[in-house]
Amino acid sequence: MRTVAIVAPGAMGSAIAARLTENGVRVLTSLEGRGEQTRERARAAGMSDAADSDLARADLLLSIVPPADAMGVAHRFAGPLAAAGEDRAIYVDCNAINVETKREVAGVIAAGGTTFLDGAIIGLPPKPGAPGPRFYIAGDDPGPAVQLRAFGLDMRPCEGGIGAAAGLKMSFAGLNKGLTALAATMVLAAARAGSLEALRAELAETEPALLARFERGLPDMVPKAYRWAPEMREIAGFVGDDEAGRSIFEGAERLYARLARDEGADDVAALRAFAAGARRGDV
Amino acid sequence: MRTVAIVAPGAMGSAIAARLTENGVRVLTSLEGRGEQTRERARAAGMSDAADSDLARADLLLSIVPPADAMGVAHRFAGPLAAAGEDRAIYVDCNAINVETKREVAGVIAAGGTTFLDGAIIGLPPKPGAPGPRFYIAGDDPGPAVQLRAFGLDMRPCEGGIGAAAGLKMSFAGLNKGLTALAATMVLAAARAGSLEALRAELAETEPALLARFERGLPDMVPKAYRWAPEMREIAGFVGDDEAGRSIFEGAERLYARLARDEGADDVAALRAFAAGARRGDV
Repeated sequence: MRTVAIVAPGAMGSAIAARLTENGVRVLTSLEGRGEQTRERARAAGMSDAADSDLARADLLLSIVPPADAMGVAHRFAGPLAAAGEDRAIYVDCNAINVETKREVAGVIAAGGTTFLDGAIIGLPPKPGAPGPRFYIAGDDPGPAVQLRAFGLDMRPCEGGIGAAAGLKMSFAGLNKGLTALAATMVLAAARAGSLEALRAELAETEPALLARFERGLPDMVPKAYRWAPEMREIAGFVGDDEAGRSIFEGAERLYARLARDEGADDVAALRAFAAGARRGDV
Repeated sequence: MRTVAIVAPGAMGSAIAARLTENGVRVLTSLEGRGEQTRERARAAGMSDAADSDLARADLLLSIVPPADAMGVAHRFAGPLAAAGEDRAIYVDCNAINVETKREVAGVIAAGGTTFLDGAIIGLPPKPGAPGPRFYIAGDDPGPAVQLRAFGLDMRPCEGGIGAAAGLKMSFAGLNKGLTALAATMVLAAARAGSLEALRAELAETEPALLARFERGLPDMVPKAYRWAPEMREIAGFVGDDEAGRSIFEGAERLYARLARDEGADDVAALRAFAAGARRGDV
């Protein structure tokens, strides 16, 4: 494993690149049309700017972009990958997209003869001194991607074929972020009913682990709510024909969308106060 | 405190009565029109059959019935309570009904001059050797109900006035049973995506407490799903104007309703298999 291409140098992509370049891997990315801040982040991570035709000739091409961009990246690289012939990269879609979308991306890539792997990233970007995220790789032969384990990434094969890693990511994120949505909903309703301090006391006595999770998770969620709303929509798509499940995640989407807007400011203040352990009278 | 009336001798009501009669309290109930099984349960708990006019003259009258019956019980006893004059019982609605409904029940009772308390029961019915449920009592003066503490019940005053105990019950139940609905939704979606074993492994590594909760909670839920569906509807009403929250709990209601019907049999089997730690191939 010598050369890895990473699209794009966002917070996650560049942190992964930094871990790889520290371990002697050459990391290519595309900076065409990108702003100075992105260029600087890519430089700091040791990434090299390259043409799409070069990215398509790396050993692995990792797509790490916002979920809405996953399909666009596949279409952009399908041609260069096909043109690279024998030299073409293995394409790993690492994005938080639902299983159906993941299989559509696989179809676009595989149509040109390129090997496709389904990747999922669970956890925060790599940081010095902290355990990195876990990469799950599904597909006929996850081996070539799992080899990045030798270069500092926590790569794991995931059984179940294309879609299994995406399904893991969706279900795990749905549990975590769905639970935070549930907690926010019940904390806000309890506050309206005058029951907030009673709820806190009951949780402290019988569900201390959940309370601790909410005290940490509710304020952590606030600045990410704008991003979690579309993620909840992906998960609503993931549950597909399960109308009950779709209603749950459409509700979570609306909640996060509301908390991200100005009209959610009072709710945000109430959640922060609950998380800070404020007494009822202060909320 | 000598005489407590309990409407009705269901699983919770009779278990509470048994705890009280063991501790020397006289417990009245109404067996008019009830079947032999209910009569036997009431007898075993030491409850005495009495007319509504007698129940209305107890020291406390506890309404412990299915949520849909709470208002009917209030209408049924409003007259006898008013007629009892100075001797009338304090009325404690202990039912899992949303805050708005609770306040309507309070209005029906208080209209006749009877003192109303808002009660909530959290936990399983009292059993010998196990900690009983927690009773939260809200209202201007919870004292008379909290005195039952001396007779073996875990009574606690709840600040916040009428509606605060109901709000506590709704929000706590919404968290617990909403979390089980979320887990069921994601386990079933992961199973469809071929990601079930990967989800189990990820939870075992990073969320062992949640996994243990799901392994216990999913099979425990199955026989109660028929009852949890209408409870989720109460909670959807409790979140009221919060459309996002309503969508979450309407989804949970539909999920439990589905799992309670024949068409949910395959899903139930998948949840049981996950909870039993079955390998992916067995599910």
